[in-house]
Amino acid sequence: MLINVGIIGATGHTGEVLIELLLNHPNVKIAHLYNSGKSSPGSQVISEVFPKFKNRLDLICKKPDWAEIKKDCDLVFLALPHTVSMSFVPKLLALGKKVIDLSADYRLKDTLVYENFYKTAHQDKKNLKEAVYGLPELNRAKIKSAALLANPGCYPTCAILAIAPLLALDLVDVDSIIIDAKSGVSGAGKKLENEYLFSEIQGDFRAYKVNVHQHAPEINQVLSKVSGKKIQVTFVPHLLPIERGILSTVYLKKASGYKLKVKTLTELYKNFYKTEPFIRIKPEGVFPRIKDVVKTNFCDIGIKDFGDTIIVIGVIDNLLKGASSQAVQNMNIMYKLPETSGLL
Amino acid sequence: MLINVGIIGATGHTGEVLIELLLNHPNVKIAHLYNSGKSSPGSQVISEVFPKFKNRLDLICKKPDWAEIKKDCDLVFLALPHTVSMSFVPKLLALGKKVIDLSADYRLKDTLVYENFYKTAHQDKKNLKEAVYGLPELNRAKIKSAALLANPGCYPTCAILAIAPLLALDLVDVDSIIIDAKSGVSGAGKKLENEYLFSEIQGDFRAYKVNVHQHAPEINQVLSKVSGKKIQVTFVPHLLPIERGILSTVYLKKASGYKLKVKTLTELYKNFYKTEPFIRIKPEGVFPRIKDVVKTNFCDIGIKDFGDTIIVIGVIDNLLKGASSQAVQNMNIMYKLPETSGLL
Amino acid sequence: MLINVGIIGATGHTGEVLIELLLNHPNVKIAHLYNSGKSSPGSQVISEVFPKFKNRLDLICKKPDWAEIKKDCDLVFLALPHTVSMSFVPKLLALGKKVIDLSADYRLKDTLVYENFYKTAHQDKKNLKEAVYGLPELNRAKIKSAALLANPGCYPTCAILAIAPLLALDLVDVDSIIIDAKSGVSGAGKKLENEYLFSEIQGDFRAYKVNVHQHAPEINQVLSKVSGKKIQVTFVPHLLPIERGILSTVYLKKASGYKLKVKTLTELYKNFYKTEPFIRIKPEGVFPRIKDVVKTNFCDIGIKDFGDTIIVIGVIDNLLKGASSQAVQNMNIMYKLPETSGLL
Amino acid sequence: MLINVGIIGATGHTGEVLIELLLNHPNVKIAHLYNSGKSSPGSQVISEVFPKFKNRLDLICKKPDWAEIKKDCDLVFLALPHTVSMSFVPKLLALGKKVIDLSADYRLKDTLVYENFYKTAHQDKKNLKEAVYGLPELNRAKIKSAALLANPGCYPTCAILAIAPLLALDLVDVDSIIIDAKSGVSGAGKKLENEYLFSEIQGDFRAYKVNVHQHAPEINQVLSKVSGKKIQVTFVPHLLPIERGILSTVYLKKASGYKLKVKTLTELYKNFYKTEPFIRIKPEGVFPRIKDVVKTNFCDIGIKDFGDTIIVIGVIDNLLKGASSQAVQNMNIMYKLPETSGLL
Repeated sequence: MLINVGIIGATGHTGEVLIELLLNHPNVKIAHLYNSGKSSPGSQVISEVFPKFKNRLDLICKKPDWAEIKKDCDLVFLALPHTVSMSFVPKLLALGKKVIDLSADYRLKDTLVYENFYKTAHQDKKNLKEAVYGLPELNRAKIKSAALLANPGCYPTCAILAIAPLLALDLVDVDSIIIDAKSGVSGAGKKLENEYLFSEIQGDFRAYKVNVHQHAPEINQVLSKVSGKKIQVTFVPHLLPIERGILSTVYLKKASGYKLKVKTLTELYKNFYKTEPFIRIKPEGVFPRIKDVVKTNFCDIGIKDFGDTIIVIGVIDNLLKGASSQAVQNMNIMYKLPETSGLL
Repeated sequence: MLINVGIIGATGHTGEVLIELLLNHPNVKIAHLYNSGKSSPGSQVISEVFPKFKNRLDLICKKPDWAEIKKDCDLVFLALPHTVSMSFVPKLLALGKKVIDLSADYRLKDTLVYENFYKTAHQDKKNLKEAVYGLPELNRAKIKSAALLANPGCYPTCAILAIAPLLALDLVDVDSIIIDAKSGVSGAGKKLENEYLFSEIQGDFRAYKVNVHQHAPEINQVLSKVSGKKIQVTFVPHLLPIERGILSTVYLKKASGYKLKVKTLTELYKNFYKTEPFIRIKPEGVFPRIKDVVKTNFCDIGIKDFGDTIIVIGVIDNLLKGASSQAVQNMNIMYKLPETSGLL
Repeated sequence: MLINVGIIGATGHTGEVLIELLLNHPNVKIAHLYNSGKSSPGSQVISEVFPKFKNRLDLICKKPDWAEIKKDCDLVFLALPHTVSMSFVPKLLALGKKVIDLSADYRLKDTLVYENFYKTAHQDKKNLKEAVYGLPELNRAKIKSAALLANPGCYPTCAILAIAPLLALDLVDVDSIIIDAKSGVSGAGKKLENEYLFSEIQGDFRAYKVNVHQHAPEINQVLSKVSGKKIQVTFVPHLLPIERGILSTVYLKKASGYKLKVKTLTELYKNFYKTEPFIRIKPEGVFPRIKDVVKTNFCDIGIKDFGDTIIVIGVIDNLLKGASSQAVQNMNIMYKLPETSGLL
Repeated sequence: MLINVGIIGATGHTGEVLIELLLNHPNVKIAHLYNSGKSSPGSQVISEVFPKFKNRLDLICKKPDWAEIKKDCDLVFLALPHTVSMSFVPKLLALGKKVIDLSADYRLKDTLVYENFYKTAHQDKKNLKEAVYGLPELNRAKIKSAALLANPGCYPTCAILAIAPLLALDLVDVDSIIIDAKSGVSGAGKKLENEYLFSEIQGDFRAYKVNVHQHAPEINQVLSKVSGKKIQVTFVPHLLPIERGILSTVYLKKASGYKLKVKTLTELYKNFYKTEPFIRIKPEGVFPRIKDVVKTNFCDIGIKDFGDTIIVIGVIDNLLKGASSQAVQNMNIMYKLPETSGLL
């Protein structure tokens, strides 16, 4: 099988990484690259934007061309900023194309929450209802038949995978969840702002958007569904002086009536994710580090029981399992390819 | 006034930083530099160990010479590894010298706890009883007359200063304290171990000694004293890919019956530390970053109320307020000098 | 075609990178992993040494087993320290195996020079004579039929590719060549030495082995062959606070009688490397940066004429084109596979 | 003595570092801080721009106020962008103030060269003629009586100090000088440009303005004066992924008739700089690294004879000896203070 894909928003961080992955995918042909149509530079040779693609991919990244998309693409990836994606999706779906959206536009089912965090009304409520949340480990069945896939955020991917087994088995106090998350700089995309200058980041470390980050409602929505109870986590993201990777340290209190059916939490996690190709559980008492997963689609998890408190640490590459390679994993599922194609 | 000081353990990280500070102190003469007497290299010109001291301090760092110390030193700083300091202290005190010990040997009053974490019996219980814990903001009165001063650990300094006001005013549930701490690599001293190689640290981030770090009992001891209740914090340190600085994110639950007498937690902290020259409270809703305090003796603190949960973030330079400059601050107090001498 | 490969020395930097590449190569099966047989840890599961290989490659890395090699391997990569490789090569060749040696043992044809730099007599002069130097761009014909391939050093690869066209066309004064080279830390392998600690490297930059580096004779040997004249370059390597990548700034004086047959040096370089899949020449006046080639097998080159002086800048990834991916490129040539297999 | 100083351009990198130094200087009172009067933010509390100055210096940085300067300042430092300084100098001199200009505006005596590199006509040729070039090691006598001091550039300071002794003694071929320079990012000031983002700098290294950098004519002007011959160096700057520090590797060919009157080049350099408090010559065969001088006003130099070629390596902190602390050293000389006041 050969999937002809287009990428809209090819010149950002996630676009760059997506191209890299798709170039190595045995079942994909990159048919066209587009920008948002609003960016000033106009057409650009992609290998001039990213010299590393020279002699590997010399496509021109240009304004979206609907006739071309209609004719040449089976699937379109949207690697666009939040609030921009939703202006493209209706038309792409109308053309019968499958869409994988890496922005936040189709993740939050509650449009009031969306509007509160993204400061704009949602323009495509109809398709929002049908969009499938693309976390394979929790939602694989629906992903198989998705026409519009909402690829998860980076912090949510890491936090949800670290917490879900405990909630699914009703082992923790749902009001006690604290997520202390740390991310590399690429999570912020390529914003040209003073705070992302080398001289500001190097040698520094800081919290930001303390307990008011836009990824908190995404985490709450998914974990509430897993647990069947309304969940509101405490979520504090921090900025690491590295390029890639997220590590989330999660603190939870045991539920009253806490009782394990297996010997250890490690065993419980291993069972829960037994058939997952991209989840690796650390041995008892060992916690993962960011280097374990950088440049991979893996999420590694360590967990330990400390009496009343449980500590779980999860790590992912924010640009891969937290964005582009998870999008490819979802594509593999949507097209019935082996889930690890192009990813191992 | 001129204080003649000796430094034992001058070639480590804290020794290096201490020399730098004392060279700039208007009331100090560095009389002698010593190693532990056990290190293999024997005598070394300090400006060959640290080329940056060339033409500024060309003393020889050699085996401790008791006759010389007796004759030339008023005060001796011990910048030695844990478990080594306690073999020097009795003799120094017997010679009538004042001692500021930067190791952990005289911090923990409970020798069972000490022995549990440092894997060796305490050899100087007599002086341990008299040692004064050198956190000026909580213990200034006793520091004034100390003969043996136990300089606090880096993580404890940052965490205690961030938490103490809430406990002193009985505002939080003492069982709820979670300290998620992140430190630069210099906190580990100069250990030649694989995990501290550039290729291991750069681009990485990881937790270590999860909830079993030797600084937890020091935090517990001091906070218990502040609150009058037995406190056992959850403490998870992480290793940042930077050289200097600690940031601690602290999560606490409000006590039942929580009630502020001032308008905001920020105001409460400002009042609590009103006369402190080295504590700076951030404006409401602002949190400090490591760059704010690197190369200074300041501890900056930000605090915010999130309903049931309070989040406090504190930052220090681990080698300065977390070690050497706090030792100088303590010296200033012991010698009735202005507390900021040589530090601003 | 399926090539069954063994790797001896699988736990070092180049071993790790080689495994990564071979896992993605469509014509390779990694049959066995071995250590040098002298290292203390004994057998190790490779995915415990490198957690990122967990669930991808779970072979045991053990003492070399000759019977096994004889039975299961077509080709053996030696990713061993210098002076160790030559104790393995004779036996492997005797078993009829092809060998790609990533160490320096078979690069220098003059054993006096070898012994001068590596402080030990060469133990396998017979095979040294037959060994083929594996720089495809200059030596592809011989590589095709090599039984023992000496994979080039990282600095030599970058410097030679940057300089060769000028020498081949006799355009520069052979006594004028200055190579100011800068390399990331991984070039030093995984040595546990104080100078490679994070706290030593981060924020620092320094020259080392100034004009006495062991790679200079390798550069001299190859360039002398290209030019037909005896060449002795001035070569100063420096250590960059990054993990991967080499950038070499080369200064040359024009030969008397200098005359170009094309319009620009850029054009000359483009012609010289016209059919090379892994050499990319920058447009006139543009110079490459390390990020252009990190994680690729490319060597990018920029060149400019400044009157009497010519400046050439070349960049490679020291672990890839400077080691492991160049070894794979050589394997592709030796086995008549497309030269870019597994590398683009 | 107490010098009342004003700083115009206090919110840039060099302004920040200058404040830090002057706060610790025993003979200085910082009277006022000003911006250029053109920057958008208007008045700013300096401790809000740089939180580390909180509780140490709480002046307001505002539009220049000429009446205030006239009344309160003895000396004014200009830490302004190039081409801006020259609009302030005439007025300040007219008020009888001494001026130390850290920009390039008064360094180049040839206004054609200035205009060629800075793309604007020089507006103050009268004062340019009287301006004294502030490299104390070569120009101390004139600095003593300077009214307008042109503080040297960072690259020129490092390169000139490394080369001057060889030229002064006529030991090298003046056409052979190659300076391969590497600088930390702070050399570029605080420009908000894509190329200075963390994600661009971290893990990268590149040359820039290859042989066309605006500091080359400054180097040529000073070295020509030292040697009495017209000098045109080859100068290639590179960008290091660190914040502070410059290392220059200099390659020179011996002059015909080369003859040393002392035993080694090291000895020659030690003699040449014998009375200099801030120049340190490395022992024979040892070369300096950036960490040796970071956060100091020192320039460390290593030198070695390699037959026809001489290699010299010099290092400085670009923000200190390359800018702000050299300005303080010049102030000390202008006011007959000990030259090391506030600097050791």
